[in-house]
Amino acid sequence: MTHLSEAPIGLFDSGLGGLTVAREIMRNLPDEKIVYFGDTARVPYGNKSKGTVVRYSEQILRFLLTQNIKAVVIACNTASAMALEALRDKTDLPVLGVVSPGAVMAVKATRNKRVGVMATKSTIASESYVKEIHRLDPEVTVVGEPCPLLVPLVEEGWTNTKITDEILQHYLDHLMAQQVDTIIMGCTHYPLLRNAIARLVGDEITLVNPAYETALALKKVLDENGLLNTTPANKADPYPYRFFVSDEAERFRDFAGMILPVDVRSAEMIPIEKY
Amino acid sequence: MTHLSEAPIGLFDSGLGGLTVAREIMRNLPDEKIVYFGDTARVPYGNKSKGTVVRYSEQILRFLLTQNIKAVVIACNTASAMALEALRDKTDLPVLGVVSPGAVMAVKATRNKRVGVMATKSTIASESYVKEIHRLDPEVTVVGEPCPLLVPLVEEGWTNTKITDEILQHYLDHLMAQQVDTIIMGCTHYPLLRNAIARLVGDEITLVNPAYETALALKKVLDENGLLNTTPANKADPYPYRFFVSDEAERFRDFAGMILPVDVRSAEMIPIEKY
Repeated sequence: MTHLSEAPIGLFDSGLGGLTVAREIMRNLPDEKIVYFGDTARVPYGNKSKGTVVRYSEQILRFLLTQNIKAVVIACNTASAMALEALRDKTDLPVLGVVSPGAVMAVKATRNKRVGVMATKSTIASESYVKEIHRLDPEVTVVGEPCPLLVPLVEEGWTNTKITDEILQHYLDHLMAQQVDTIIMGCTHYPLLRNAIARLVGDEITLVNPAYETALALKKVLDENGLLNTTPANKADPYPYRFFVSDEAERFRDFAGMILPVDVRSAEMIPIEKY
Repeated sequence: MTHLSEAPIGLFDSGLGGLTVAREIMRNLPDEKIVYFGDTARVPYGNKSKGTVVRYSEQILRFLLTQNIKAVVIACNTASAMALEALRDKTDLPVLGVVSPGAVMAVKATRNKRVGVMATKSTIASESYVKEIHRLDPEVTVVGEPCPLLVPLVEEGWTNTKITDEILQHYLDHLMAQQVDTIIMGCTHYPLLRNAIARLVGDEITLVNPAYETALALKKVLDENGLLNTTPANKADPYPYRFFVSDEAERFRDFAGMILPVDVRSAEMIPIEKY
């Protein structure tokens, strides 16, 4: 019988953006197996209501639990903001979202106690970054900026165009006017715009990538629970990473190729509504 | 017992964009009742696969049939392109999409036999406008341009901004380089950009609005089937228009207020996955 520590991490996202979180886990916890689910049939979550996002997230949790996982990572900022508590009520496994690790780093990084958050409309409306930051330090001012056009721009591959710069400038102007010195890239797609954002805001601003912080937080949680895999995944299992989606998997490979450090052959489509 | 002609039209869309089609039916067939369904929980369809769009459309048809409708209008260009045949197999009621009426008008309007189509990626990839136009006139050259950023821009209310003009110009440059003299606005949201598009392309280009053409085609089909309502809806029924959505209905009123000529109080949320 294999030990629970050799079981995979269950990771999910509203679509393929969460592969940026998978990437950080692959880099920082190279011995861990991953089961990834992307809800590509119902993407995006960023404009949807809490009730709908919770219902979808619970279906996905039920699917992931069929894969004998040892922990759950909600890679989607919107689902982390809206469904983390609901999922913790449904399983005894450790459940991590991306919001808390991002908030912890932002509070550490800010010197003037003014933090900006770029995110989807739903994440901003949920105020979950605000609540999480204020739990850590009530004196930090949090300025939220909904950036609904950035996901479509990234998905078009327009990460390095004049138009994207102009739209970024529009969003960043609002944050810079509030003198933030730290900005959380609070949506899975935004780290793919990191170079453009860094160029526009300059060296004085710290950019926080919740995907990276979440990989480190996951390592800590696994360690504390005796769940770190000590059997290197790449040797024991030729396919340490498995990918599932809810829409046909055709477009998966291109987007995965843009993001992941490993070659991903394909994703399997599953009928998520049935879970 | 009421006559079938007094039954409502069942109209559906991936979200709220189809309200532009409802608007044209309200204006051009003022005696008809409408049951509208917007799949706001799973919007958009424009990047999804045919299998998924057909499955979602069949669920919606099953819901609409519970509302004792007399005809079905697929207001969504993507669903019209992908699911029209599948829905016609499932019901004996007349089923209209927006693609065919738009294609008919474009073939009538073009003088140089070069037609451009602006639409979502899925609609362009389906080639349904090309097939429909070639069925009518094989000599017409059809130039498709996927415009995936326009829906998010319209939903942000950025219909009249410099950035939207630049993105429109990017898409229109490709069409104008192919010397089209007629452009189909092949997505429900695009008529809301009509003024900007007309300004950028100039008077020489004919813009075709499939929503308007569909309302006229619907009138013809109802008439041919003895289904035109001769009991004016507004007098017989204080609520001739009913609206259903799959996500919480909160944001419905604002968007509906932007588009519809009548005041819409609310939409009812239904669990579409159960149908």
